Amino acid sequence: MPDRHVPLRLHPDRLLPPDPGVRDLALRLYESVRSAPILSPHGHVDPLLLVHDEPFTDPATLLITPDHYVTRLLHAAGVPLAQLGVGQGRLTQDQARGVWRRLCEHWAVFRGTPVRYWLESELAEIFGVDERPGADSADRIYDRIAACLTQPDFRPRALFRRFGIEVLATTDDPCDDLAAHRALAADDDWDGRVIPTFRPDRYLEPAGQDWAAAVARLGEAANTDTGDFDGYVQALEVRRRYFVEHGATSADHSHADVRTDPLPHADAARIYAAALKGEATDGECTALRRHMLGEMARMSCEDGLAMTLHPGVRRNHHTPTFDRFGPDTGHDIPIPVEFTDALRPLLERYGTHPGFRLVLFTLDETVFSREIAPLAGFYPSVYAGAPWWFLDAPDAIRRYRRAVTETAGFTRTSGFVDDTRAFCSIPARHDMSRRLDCGVLAELVAEHRLDEDEAFETAADLVAVNPRKAFKL
Amino acid sequence: MPDRHVPLRLHPDRLLPPDPGVRDLALRLYESVRSAPILSPHGHVDPLLLVHDEPFTDPATLLITPDHYVTRLLHAAGVPLAQLGVGQGRLTQDQARGVWRRLCEHWAVFRGTPVRYWLESELAEIFGVDERPGADSADRIYDRIAACLTQPDFRPRALFRRFGIEVLATTDDPCDDLAAHRALAADDDWDGRVIPTFRPDRYLEPAGQDWAAAVARLGEAANTDTGDFDGYVQALEVRRRYFVEHGATSADHSHADVRTDPLPHADAARIYAAALKGEATDGECTALRRHMLGEMARMSCEDGLAMTLHPGVRRNHHTPTFDRFGPDTGHDIPIPVEFTDALRPLLERYGTHPGFRLVLFTLDETVFSREIAPLAGFYPSVYAGAPWWFLDAPDAIRRYRRAVTETAGFTRTSGFVDDTRAFCSIPARHDMSRRLDCGVLAELVAEHRLDEDEAFETAADLVAVNPRKAFKL
Amino acid sequence: MPDRHVPLRLHPDRLLPPDPGVRDLALRLYESVRSAPILSPHGHVDPLLLVHDEPFTDPATLLITPDHYVTRLLHAAGVPLAQLGVGQGRLTQDQARGVWRRLCEHWAVFRGTPVRYWLESELAEIFGVDERPGADSADRIYDRIAACLTQPDFRPRALFRRFGIEVLATTDDPCDDLAAHRALAADDDWDGRVIPTFRPDRYLEPAGQDWAAAVARLGEAANTDTGDFDGYVQALEVRRRYFVEHGATSADHSHADVRTDPLPHADAARIYAAALKGEATDGECTALRRHMLGEMARMSCEDGLAMTLHPGVRRNHHTPTFDRFGPDTGHDIPIPVEFTDALRPLLERYGTHPGFRLVLFTLDETVFSREIAPLAGFYPSVYAGAPWWFLDAPDAIRRYRRAVTETAGFTRTSGFVDDTRAFCSIPARHDMSRRLDCGVLAELVAEHRLDEDEAFETAADLVAVNPRKAFKL
Repeated sequence: MPDRHVPLRLHPDRLLPPDPGVRDLALRLYESVRSAPILSPHGHVDPLLLVHDEPFTDPATLLITPDHYVTRLLHAAGVPLAQLGVGQGRLTQDQARGVWRRLCEHWAVFRGTPVRYWLESELAEIFGVDERPGADSADRIYDRIAACLTQPDFRPRALFRRFGIEVLATTDDPCDDLAAHRALAADDDWDGRVIPTFRPDRYLEPAGQDWAAAVARLGEAANTDTGDFDGYVQALEVRRRYFVEHGATSADHSHADVRTDPLPHADAARIYAAALKGEATDGECTALRRHMLGEMARMSCEDGLAMTLHPGVRRNHHTPTFDRFGPDTGHDIPIPVEFTDALRPLLERYGTHPGFRLVLFTLDETVFSREIAPLAGFYPSVYAGAPWWFLDAPDAIRRYRRAVTETAGFTRTSGFVDDTRAFCSIPARHDMSRRLDCGVLAELVAEHRLDEDEAFETAADLVAVNPRKAFKL
Repeated sequence: MPDRHVPLRLHPDRLLPPDPGVRDLALRLYESVRSAPILSPHGHVDPLLLVHDEPFTDPATLLITPDHYVTRLLHAAGVPLAQLGVGQGRLTQDQARGVWRRLCEHWAVFRGTPVRYWLESELAEIFGVDERPGADSADRIYDRIAACLTQPDFRPRALFRRFGIEVLATTDDPCDDLAAHRALAADDDWDGRVIPTFRPDRYLEPAGQDWAAAVARLGEAANTDTGDFDGYVQALEVRRRYFVEHGATSADHSHADVRTDPLPHADAARIYAAALKGEATDGECTALRRHMLGEMARMSCEDGLAMTLHPGVRRNHHTPTFDRFGPDTGHDIPIPVEFTDALRPLLERYGTHPGFRLVLFTLDETVFSREIAPLAGFYPSVYAGAPWWFLDAPDAIRRYRRAVTETAGFTRTSGFVDDTRAFCSIPARHDMSRRLDCGVLAELVAEHRLDEDEAFETAADLVAVNPRKAFKL
Repeated sequence: MPDRHVPLRLHPDRLLPPDPGVRDLALRLYESVRSAPILSPHGHVDPLLLVHDEPFTDPATLLITPDHYVTRLLHAAGVPLAQLGVGQGRLTQDQARGVWRRLCEHWAVFRGTPVRYWLESELAEIFGVDERPGADSADRIYDRIAACLTQPDFRPRALFRRFGIEVLATTDDPCDDLAAHRALAADDDWDGRVIPTFRPDRYLEPAGQDWAAAVARLGEAANTDTGDFDGYVQALEVRRRYFVEHGATSADHSHADVRTDPLPHADAARIYAAALKGEATDGECTALRRHMLGEMARMSCEDGLAMTLHPGVRRNHHTPTFDRFGPDTGHDIPIPVEFTDALRPLLERYGTHPGFRLVLFTLDETVFSREIAPLAGFYPSVYAGAPWWFLDAPDAIRRYRRAVTETAGFTRTSGFVDDTRAFCSIPARHDMSRRLDCGVLAELVAEHRLDEDEAFETAADLVAVNPRKAFKL
């Protein structure tokens, strides 16, 4: 059987509406924003990557193993996570090549998914790959990427510049000393903007396994006694300020729900004390977490951090996989979510506070038109967050715009958020978003719902103005 | 900087599908219904407007201040409601001009929303405005509209005739003596049909703040002692008949849910008595309200009023705004809603009653395909209500048709309902609906799912037959 | 008035995207799969039809009376079910003709529904009807079909062959002796594959009316004492094996929810004993049913039957209709459904079991992107079932593909399932599905998200590979 060499080509019109009349305008809109700098206000890239600026070790470790978007579909196709390098520590070149082959052999499972789109973009645009992944081409592609990775131009800092990233936000533990961010700030050879994000989930979940130890650590980091509730609240305030001082502009929260019912101070203090002793009920723990989410909004009004919410996921759905491979291994599964009643106590207090920002993300599309857009269409603080995670894909992004825009317009949306731990996918993700938004705008013009000059202005706003406003960049 | 004069033009093809082949048929379908008389079976126009027929005072009071569709997005953009004239009483011309300028300066926040579409249509078609609102054009447009408003042709009755309104339903309190409707009926210079709608929400919510006083008033209006449950029920029946005698064809209901579980008579009577004394629990109050919703269906079977349901909104979400500016100020936010189980007791009793009509509206799109269409596709009484409120917009209307039609066809839908308090937006709203329905029909023909003659017949039915059937006009 | 003879023509491009560029590829894709054999892994055709192979009695009994898709919309239009032959026993030719006329007179109520599409396809392609149903044409069409039905070519077996059915799964009671299936297997004149499906709902619902009698029957069928819980479980295992021996490849389950919380054995045994005596509470009955759904998964891992779930319907919503006409008469109405938490206990135990298959169907579209696709995109056992029932229609099928594919790709979907009791609609339904999937694939190619060769391969997989995998055919 002859070797199959199937070309891989990125079509210049990809993702734009197929109708020739609409596509032409969509393309012109896209050309007007394609090279705009990337603002990445929320994501999971490790800042040490840029501090150390070491060459990436191999294609599999760079593009497959740590990215649960990629591994979950291979797992569903019957490839055990262990065969993808998950939980294997540093891979040998042989192991890495094996992992890479597995991806290429199963390339068909990604058809119709954004993962395929992003990987294709990365292969072609970053590494110059010109053939489609498959069993035959696996080794050739591996070799090509591996060769690239030895070059200075493919080190993290070089790619950061090549990608045109203007600001990159990381996601960080409140106890983190932000040494990496400080190192970057102090580095004369580095002028990129890499800012931390305050992500206190574990400290706000008294029912979590290691919560008591966590708040003890928090106290140490804040140099504050967290032995009682007031100290705990103060420690959080101290650490938030530390983050602000190191460039943070937002605090991110991801719990099962976003209820924000306040507790009387005495009750909160009592539950806190009980929780520290492991004697709080599940209901009390939840009540304290909800109270604290409201407190986070209060602190945001005081210290200026934008508040962003990513709720409604059942984390680590498959316990055997979690036990063996840890978190973020592809089996976090969404659940229904509710914002209207849940956020009411918070919004009644802080919803019209000047400068307060509350960006709402969801994996439950039903709330786009029902709750998020109506909230963002009244409260000056509320922004409809870009489609998140499973919804960060062409058709879902279009559904988001169609569900949100009619109620909240374009100005009340957050702008694109890549939310990725796959560094090389950042430009492909932002590019996808720009193409799709331009397609939506072109369709509005084609239906005479928007004038062409307005479409150009809006396209530019979405990449340059909206994220700055929503995330206070 | 030179003054910008950006033209405002309504394209004849607006909102029609961009594909040239489909658009051609859509346009022909639209031409066949564009001039059909407007049936407005549910809305919130004040009938006194037509009784007094006085000139509208100014552009802001006519188009901005009372319309929460407009003010909520300006509020979200940071304009305080007070700067939009809300809660300010009658505006001076200076104040009105200031409010108008605020709208024009923030014109961009309406991009992609139906509010912009309606306002554009009103400006161009009613007032002959030919430039886009903006900071530069604000005063010119204000002056033009203000000049129009002094002319006889722009008084309410003249506009009513010009709009081609065949019937306009208002929304009225059960205690209302319907003097305005009687005055119109007795006026020899007036031949428009303006009918009341029975809207008893407050009388059915024993947990409401002034409920006891309300039912006392109800008793007076009905000349019936509402001191016990039977008198209360009888008073409602009396007032419904009064409405029927004055032309009403429907009763409208808007509660948080639409459960209709019946209570034994003794329990209902007991809870009623307790509620009058302020001693009923929240649960009992809710149970009584649900029982009464079922009673309303019984009365509808007896007196012939169509029953229409608008559930699932958390009213006055932001209490500080409500306290200062009152209800209907842009922060009613939808919540999830459920019809299948909630309506079962009602439908088991009355669902196949000859002549009964139950029109279901929702702000929660998830029920279109899951619950409303299946119910309307079996029960002869049930109609799928047109997209309501936030969903009364081009993309949402298309989603409604696509979600409902495959299960319930076209005949089980209510026809368009403008539900507006913005008098001048009525023709634009109906025109939008006609364009969109014709677009949907043209697409069905283009996919060979419908023949062309059927599309023309259906387009005509949707504007002329369906609303008459669903609302018994 | 002259008789109207309106032609009925099936356009070769029907259901394909109207854009000429996209349609061309869609048509080529469709041509490549249009003649592929039909795999029908789930449905409700009576196997005796094929055993007896008798002529169908009349057009109404064949196409209207037993098909609640058809009768429910006529009922909603005001035609009593009795006038459609429902619950009337065998119809006379006069009665049948009357039922047929009623359908034709109300042909307009089906506009925009798939029922109209299927019936049109059946009339034209099976019976050569060339005019549109209507009052004028009713008798002519009736006569034409009736004449066909007397011909040998229109007997069930002949149609089965003409339809190109490779495998047809029926749905059967666990106590069924599968005599029909055995008769077909033993018939030398018959080489079609007709396989049973194990459907144990009533035996798993201890709150059901005749449950105790049912499990007694089950015991007899299994020759196992169901007097205690272990015997009950064993009896189910025995009957499943019996089904496996007779060709079954799947077990189907339809309960209000799909929770699978396991009970300790002692609790399950205790509740079982109480339920047999009619002394179990509603909560206990539900708990036992949920435990048993988990048990069904365990048995599937052992005996190899694919497990398929059709949850979330309120059966027989209108009790008066149920009391008079029985089940499956058009008023089963969907309710919200939840998979993520409900299935977690099951998936933690069996989700990665080699060879286990769990196919998830829904009438609640909200779970496609939120729950089903994320589950199918991780668990090797989980497949996203094809759109079911009310969702088995062009626009809903497109929504399904757009909601599921971006998260789970094409390989994690079940392939088409007709789920019908209308034998003659089988080819029309599969043809519809093929057209729509090819349209979706062509659109992906048009947006440069998929290469053309991949689209052809995927189209073929969807009709030939996916159902075999998901249902283990």
